[in-house]
Amino acid sequence: MKALVIHAPGDLRVEDVPTPETEPNQLLVRVRCGGICGSDLHYYQHGGFGTVRIQQPMILGHEVAGVIEAVGSGLSNFTAGQRVAITPSRPCGRCQYCQQGLQNHCLDMRYYGSAMRMPHVQGAFRQEIVVEAEQAHLLADSVSDAEGALAEPLSVALHAVRRAGPLVGKNVLVTGSGPIGALLVIAARHAGATHIVVTDVADAPLRSALKVGADETINVAADPQALARFEADKGFFDVLFEASGNERALTGAFAVLRPRSVIVQVGLGGGNMNLPINTIVAKEFDLRGAFRFHEEFATAVALLNKGLVDVKPLISATLPYRDAGRAFALAADRSQAMKVVLSFDE
Amino acid sequence: MKALVIHAPGDLRVEDVPTPETEPNQLLVRVRCGGICGSDLHYYQHGGFGTVRIQQPMILGHEVAGVIEAVGSGLSNFTAGQRVAITPSRPCGRCQYCQQGLQNHCLDMRYYGSAMRMPHVQGAFRQEIVVEAEQAHLLADSVSDAEGALAEPLSVALHAVRRAGPLVGKNVLVTGSGPIGALLVIAARHAGATHIVVTDVADAPLRSALKVGADETINVAADPQALARFEADKGFFDVLFEASGNERALTGAFAVLRPRSVIVQVGLGGGNMNLPINTIVAKEFDLRGAFRFHEEFATAVALLNKGLVDVKPLISATLPYRDAGRAFALAADRSQAMKVVLSFDE
Amino acid sequence: MKALVIHAPGDLRVEDVPTPETEPNQLLVRVRCGGICGSDLHYYQHGGFGTVRIQQPMILGHEVAGVIEAVGSGLSNFTAGQRVAITPSRPCGRCQYCQQGLQNHCLDMRYYGSAMRMPHVQGAFRQEIVVEAEQAHLLADSVSDAEGALAEPLSVALHAVRRAGPLVGKNVLVTGSGPIGALLVIAARHAGATHIVVTDVADAPLRSALKVGADETINVAADPQALARFEADKGFFDVLFEASGNERALTGAFAVLRPRSVIVQVGLGGGNMNLPINTIVAKEFDLRGAFRFHEEFATAVALLNKGLVDVKPLISATLPYRDAGRAFALAADRSQAMKVVLSFDE
Amino acid sequence: MKALVIHAPGDLRVEDVPTPETEPNQLLVRVRCGGICGSDLHYYQHGGFGTVRIQQPMILGHEVAGVIEAVGSGLSNFTAGQRVAITPSRPCGRCQYCQQGLQNHCLDMRYYGSAMRMPHVQGAFRQEIVVEAEQAHLLADSVSDAEGALAEPLSVALHAVRRAGPLVGKNVLVTGSGPIGALLVIAARHAGATHIVVTDVADAPLRSALKVGADETINVAADPQALARFEADKGFFDVLFEASGNERALTGAFAVLRPRSVIVQVGLGGGNMNLPINTIVAKEFDLRGAFRFHEEFATAVALLNKGLVDVKPLISATLPYRDAGRAFALAADRSQAMKVVLSFDE
Repeated sequence: MKALVIHAPGDLRVEDVPTPETEPNQLLVRVRCGGICGSDLHYYQHGGFGTVRIQQPMILGHEVAGVIEAVGSGLSNFTAGQRVAITPSRPCGRCQYCQQGLQNHCLDMRYYGSAMRMPHVQGAFRQEIVVEAEQAHLLADSVSDAEGALAEPLSVALHAVRRAGPLVGKNVLVTGSGPIGALLVIAARHAGATHIVVTDVADAPLRSALKVGADETINVAADPQALARFEADKGFFDVLFEASGNERALTGAFAVLRPRSVIVQVGLGGGNMNLPINTIVAKEFDLRGAFRFHEEFATAVALLNKGLVDVKPLISATLPYRDAGRAFALAADRSQAMKVVLSFDE
Repeated sequence: MKALVIHAPGDLRVEDVPTPETEPNQLLVRVRCGGICGSDLHYYQHGGFGTVRIQQPMILGHEVAGVIEAVGSGLSNFTAGQRVAITPSRPCGRCQYCQQGLQNHCLDMRYYGSAMRMPHVQGAFRQEIVVEAEQAHLLADSVSDAEGALAEPLSVALHAVRRAGPLVGKNVLVTGSGPIGALLVIAARHAGATHIVVTDVADAPLRSALKVGADETINVAADPQALARFEADKGFFDVLFEASGNERALTGAFAVLRPRSVIVQVGLGGGNMNLPINTIVAKEFDLRGAFRFHEEFATAVALLNKGLVDVKPLISATLPYRDAGRAFALAADRSQAMKVVLSFDE
Repeated sequence: MKALVIHAPGDLRVEDVPTPETEPNQLLVRVRCGGICGSDLHYYQHGGFGTVRIQQPMILGHEVAGVIEAVGSGLSNFTAGQRVAITPSRPCGRCQYCQQGLQNHCLDMRYYGSAMRMPHVQGAFRQEIVVEAEQAHLLADSVSDAEGALAEPLSVALHAVRRAGPLVGKNVLVTGSGPIGALLVIAARHAGATHIVVTDVADAPLRSALKVGADETINVAADPQALARFEADKGFFDVLFEASGNERALTGAFAVLRPRSVIVQVGLGGGNMNLPINTIVAKEFDLRGAFRFHEEFATAVALLNKGLVDVKPLISATLPYRDAGRAFALAADRSQAMKVVLSFDE
Repeated sequence: MKALVIHAPGDLRVEDVPTPETEPNQLLVRVRCGGICGSDLHYYQHGGFGTVRIQQPMILGHEVAGVIEAVGSGLSNFTAGQRVAITPSRPCGRCQYCQQGLQNHCLDMRYYGSAMRMPHVQGAFRQEIVVEAEQAHLLADSVSDAEGALAEPLSVALHAVRRAGPLVGKNVLVTGSGPIGALLVIAARHAGATHIVVTDVADAPLRSALKVGADETINVAADPQALARFEADKGFFDVLFEASGNERALTGAFAVLRPRSVIVQVGLGGGNMNLPINTIVAKEFDLRGAFRFHEEFATAVALLNKGLVDVKPLISATLPYRDAGRAFALAADRSQAMKVVLSFDE
């Protein structure tokens, strides 16, 4: 079968890789769709991010859905032909963090398509993959393969929303309207946020945010003072989801965040951020990192299956995996694309 | 009566001020002791901090205890001669934040000795002061006036501890062993912290931290790698109280903080801090500002009255208010002093 | 003007009452719609509930919406002709509970139409009422008067949901499908509950629950064992909203509630409940009372105005106030009615 | 070796049992002290409690400390001769609850000396026991074997305190001053409770409560109205630890608990409790079960080792295991004994 292997920045190859054996309690899945994530893009464009760098060839991809081809012994819940979304989160289950329910901090995590450890963990942009049964979540007929592939980034958004605490009655600001920012709008709305404002420096992504339910959008490049109308009485917003990884987006929101606001930092930045710490102290902000997810994947699939959320407006295009170069270029073009999906059918 | 009035950096004068009238529900208190706070020092040394600057003469001081001289009409709970600690926190009680129980974020706060608003709010380094009845908290005979003056910074520490959530069974790191850092040791111990490590760049304050209950202290200037032994398995500490306002203290702790650690930022810094935001995200830290206090003042006095905490080791010296210059110089000398107290008796 | 005054069980009279003066910061509102609440029914049928008994004539009603007739001096936010929902929650703002943000526990609450204190607090089933400006919340044109009257019970449901904590990804059981139970379905769905099952002992209310978004309904009178399929692995549900006030509904759910489940008790019962305390201990349930609301009223109106919730399926009928007897009889008939609304137009 | 085996109510025998093999990662421990728990007493007096009944011979006991005799292969942290407290909590580590950090709700828990499952889990009142390495916690030289045996009930108290949330500044009521009630006083004080009042129906246990730090004690049998002085303004206490399992203790506290009080139910009762549910609703109490513990055992041993708590006043007597009958009789006599410890030395 074929897989998409990154060798160096810009050097992404379609290669033959062997299909692994299916062990008991495992499933062989024919991958049909895979979403291109920001981290895939970083590997492709820059060979990594921060201190994480490609040091050996690695199959990319961790947002995939497909159809079961073979069922390992001991699994009565699955049958060949069922369609599934696959979680890339594979914690060890035994370390202290797993035993505390913090699987996303597992000491021995093997997350698909990640160069965080050596040897790298191979990814899921491949035509066939063997997964543990608990990684596979059945998709309803009403959910397309591409939507199924979005279960993963939706899980990221749901995890960030969980980190924020209850949202009913809250005014929410989302800075950065990329795929994660837009999914945060969906997730925050689903969680009951009362008023959602989204900022970005480009209009196209903001139009997507409106499509998925934002109440207002602001292009802060076009109108840098537009947020100022939310400054009265120490601020308007109760919660900020920072999804741009941009220092100015974060600090620019401080004046419109009420005392005791929760800031959920989701976006990863290029390096350090220079923050006015005295404002964090004086307004008693609560700045929380949100990293990946674990049990939220099951929730994400349930929401898609029940039609409680609609991610279709965020799927910009589906391209064949053999056009990966074009697909990655499109994914990198914020004026054109939100989420770009690869098809792994021949 | 006399008061200590700051006119400009270094220009602190003993001046005559009139004694105000005592209205109903108010108390006239003869001030006996006042602790010199870091903010008093900043006004004295630099004329302020950050954007807060002295723009008119202002009586300093907000950590005071004294004896009731006169009781306004309508107050049956107090009698002349009783000794009280006085909270400098005077929220309006009516704004949206007061009505949410967030009095320290009051839109119309009149905190003693603060240049945050114009006209400045005059402070309590004065021989007589008229206070609202709810500002006065009776001191037990076993508590000295100087200890009573420490109820205020102890309240700051108790508030920061409250911001941290439960501490029983937790490993706690305190960075910065000034008066607030040392009071954080006392407050964290009182709240059940299991293991408390304190860092500083000087030995004298660390000795004080040991006296008030720290399990270990580390001079990170003398041994910059000393914290490294806490790095295994993604870190040892569950909670950090950052009381230095120093960027290196904060970021230097990131490697020894476990995922989902709570960081309570208490120290105010000179300006911005340059933070590795990706670590905050990936380890899902929870960085919370802690600012002043409100209801914790009653708790602080109760703890002193019951002998549940002992702040005496932190009182370095008590000097007459007429020697304010010498007292402020001593308070600024970390090799000599933790908390310096002024006596307002003639 | 006319008002509906209860004198004794079954003795509800249309009486003339004077229109009060409008003071500064107050509004004179012509009441157009008023929803009949369970407590109104209890006063009408039984003269009260528990130890709360009518001891003097009292105007009933606390779920009303209307149109502004006159605006007191000092109010620039309102103009005559605007339609408003009116919150019956009138805390003192000064007591310790108000100052903690717990206004629903105010020591001096004057909640409309309540015999909890003497003299009773007169209610809002009247043609004109003078309210404080902060009680009035503007209704969008898209929201009918009757829907506006439902802002109050919706607030009760939102408060109960807030007491439950985050609901995203949670399986929720609602026992009792009266108006509050059905509004809890709406509120829990709005807050992101993943799967909602509703039980009752009658079919008609369960049909309403389905209309407002329940995933499944169970008539536990018809099939007492139907919940048993949720018992595996110590239970299926994470949260129970108990809205029947019935002991069997509460205890019958214990076997299907997972360890650490949150139980929000909303329903008031006739007296004591006999509870298997050892199950509460061994499964570490968290049983929380939910009583009235305060700031949730603004949220309720916002949700109605934005169309984020739809309460129309719960409005069974609107009858003229002069037919109050017939309206109360209908409201008491669970086979016929969910929420019955009185019209106060002539 | 010898073990204490319960066959039927009142039929507790000293029997020979074989010493098991020590597997890798296990320790062979010579048991030195074992505390008699309320559940041991129930098995001895009544053959069980609630629906839990002895159906086959079972070694009692789950509060033990001893000395390591042999160390299984693969364990470098332990050596023969070290003294350890042994946790009886043995969750499976793999079920959904273990993976959520809720080990005390494990679907396959094997808790020492428990007839909850068939075959029963044999207990630790025996001269030698083989334990998993993670069950053994090293005791400091300053901690006696008997104190080490109290690590288990102290863990129960610490878990209950954790269930209560932060206690600093809180007024705490403890109803029931048996060993667990008294340990709750210790744990609540350690966690920073400001004022602790304890009630019981007997004087002797209340004297013990005073010895371990209660501020006040009340014999509610002698003075049933004594709590009434705490009723003003809707109540005085913020938290109730109910450790008697007695309905009257629980409901008798409702009038003195403030709105939003947390009630931690620790005591197991004979059956149902008849509760005024409307008070729970109207005062929005939060009634939480607390059941056993898991990670708190490590904390309990740390507190003993560091001398941060003192359980010695609660150890009434240490008797040889061959006098088990006398020891159990003493343990059952509240006028004579708090915790009775068995010695397993020959």
